[in-house]
Amino acid sequence: MRIAYQGEPGAYSEAAALVFAADAETVACRSFDDVFAAVAEGRVARGMLPMENSIGGSIHRNYDLLVEHELPIVGEVELSVDHCLLSRAGTRLEDVKVVYSHPQALAQCERYLENMSGVEIVAVYDTAGGAKMVAEGERRDAAAVASRRAAEVFGLTILEEQIQDYAANITRFVVIARAASPADEATKTSIVFALKSTPGSLYKALSGFALRDINLTKLESRPMRGRPWEYLFYVDVEAPRQSLACARAIVHLSEFAQWVRTLGSYKAWSRATEPTQPQAAERV
Amino acid sequence: MRIAYQGEPGAYSEAAALVFAADAETVACRSFDDVFAAVAEGRVARGMLPMENSIGGSIHRNYDLLVEHELPIVGEVELSVDHCLLSRAGTRLEDVKVVYSHPQALAQCERYLENMSGVEIVAVYDTAGGAKMVAEGERRDAAAVASRRAAEVFGLTILEEQIQDYAANITRFVVIARAASPADEATKTSIVFALKSTPGSLYKALSGFALRDINLTKLESRPMRGRPWEYLFYVDVEAPRQSLACARAIVHLSEFAQWVRTLGSYKAWSRATEPTQPQAAERV
Repeated sequence: MRIAYQGEPGAYSEAAALVFAADAETVACRSFDDVFAAVAEGRVARGMLPMENSIGGSIHRNYDLLVEHELPIVGEVELSVDHCLLSRAGTRLEDVKVVYSHPQALAQCERYLENMSGVEIVAVYDTAGGAKMVAEGERRDAAAVASRRAAEVFGLTILEEQIQDYAANITRFVVIARAASPADEATKTSIVFALKSTPGSLYKALSGFALRDINLTKLESRPMRGRPWEYLFYVDVEAPRQSLACARAIVHLSEFAQWVRTLGSYKAWSRATEPTQPQAAERV
Repeated sequence: MRIAYQGEPGAYSEAAALVFAADAETVACRSFDDVFAAVAEGRVARGMLPMENSIGGSIHRNYDLLVEHELPIVGEVELSVDHCLLSRAGTRLEDVKVVYSHPQALAQCERYLENMSGVEIVAVYDTAGGAKMVAEGERRDAAAVASRRAAEVFGLTILEEQIQDYAANITRFVVIARAASPADEATKTSIVFALKSTPGSLYKALSGFALRDINLTKLESRPMRGRPWEYLFYVDVEAPRQSLACARAIVHLSEFAQWVRTLGSYKAWSRATEPTQPQAAERV
């Protein structure tokens, strides 16, 4: 199975793809938009998208893209994320003058990076891309915040490990496809809806789930672009869409929301750590 | 009145401070933490913090800091934000090879920047700081995404105006102080609470407001750091804390939430555009 992800080989999203399907052929994409395009055009079977991190919060761009496109969520992966500071061999910690990484990874290591004085922080497209810049660039005083696996892929030295501010650092990914898969094993459903800003509107919208004892595992509000202070709401509920309770709750929600869309119903995967044997190295 | 803000003179936060108090003496701080420290230690009377943008969403760091500190919200300012691409005189648009700005501003101009091919995007502490780097740095191929006012402050040329993806681009700021002010004119209240993840918990938490016809203007969930997938919720309600309805709703909320804190009750200011005459230039 071909799975597209955003980033360079060695990215956490690629690790998530290999957790989802150990024999996957992973396909690197420059942007999240490119992942959606690869799935929509049938060049890959699945796309792997980071949605939320337990420290940094949501990856809003992907919530926006899920609404722009019509590609259903067919799976979910949770991955423990341990960030390392990587450099070229011979560079010492005190030599580092510039650090590259993805903005989310930089946010997750905020305290650590604040303590590195006189260091320029540069946001790049993905963590493994930052590692590649260190490996292939001209600056010997550069370091990257990336995975242990990225160190192996790009031949870098690990200056420090587990530099994230909180040890428990988990990223939740969703898997998208062109068509919904048979949902026999589905345990969760993701829904997006828009509300008028009136007293009680969110309360009424959520009542369909609360009155049926359906648990919400996520609620996120996003500004509607170009319409200041009007919001979309994203909810994940612990129920398959096909269940009578969930189907009725969505009908109930439709009465109170301006519009509703189910983004997918899928099986939640258990948490995994990064694969230690970098199969991806062969593909570099 | 001395008002601290994060950034360099010419930052949008400084403009918001001058909207709040036209005769304010503005005090530049390097980080949001420094703004909190300046207020807590009494070095300034107020701090001005961006909380949310109508395109990019919330500035999560400030939500986290409001919980870490005990400084009440005493006011609110909304400011229309128009981003410009700034360079040194003589640099043409096609010469630009690197663009500096704050990550939020970069996110608000995402489409525009994607169309500038072969350009390196560098995240910096604030928009005006990026403009300063262009003005004082060695690279003539550098540009910054910042305000029209930053161009005046740093003597830069405006290559393009209104480069944000959506014309309606508004940032909401809150004003913090050491002590709550007399709340006679308060119209809004900001509250933070934590919930157990059980079916209906958010529904029950919101019921106190819904049943009393109190409108929510904002609901934001934030991961609790170090406790994966447990969330804090931030709500803004359109009611003064002293009103009987709001006071009762908060008591009601306290029954269902693990903990509750009122961040402040304050007057909502009407929307303003950036001051066109840069009083701040005198302070550079």
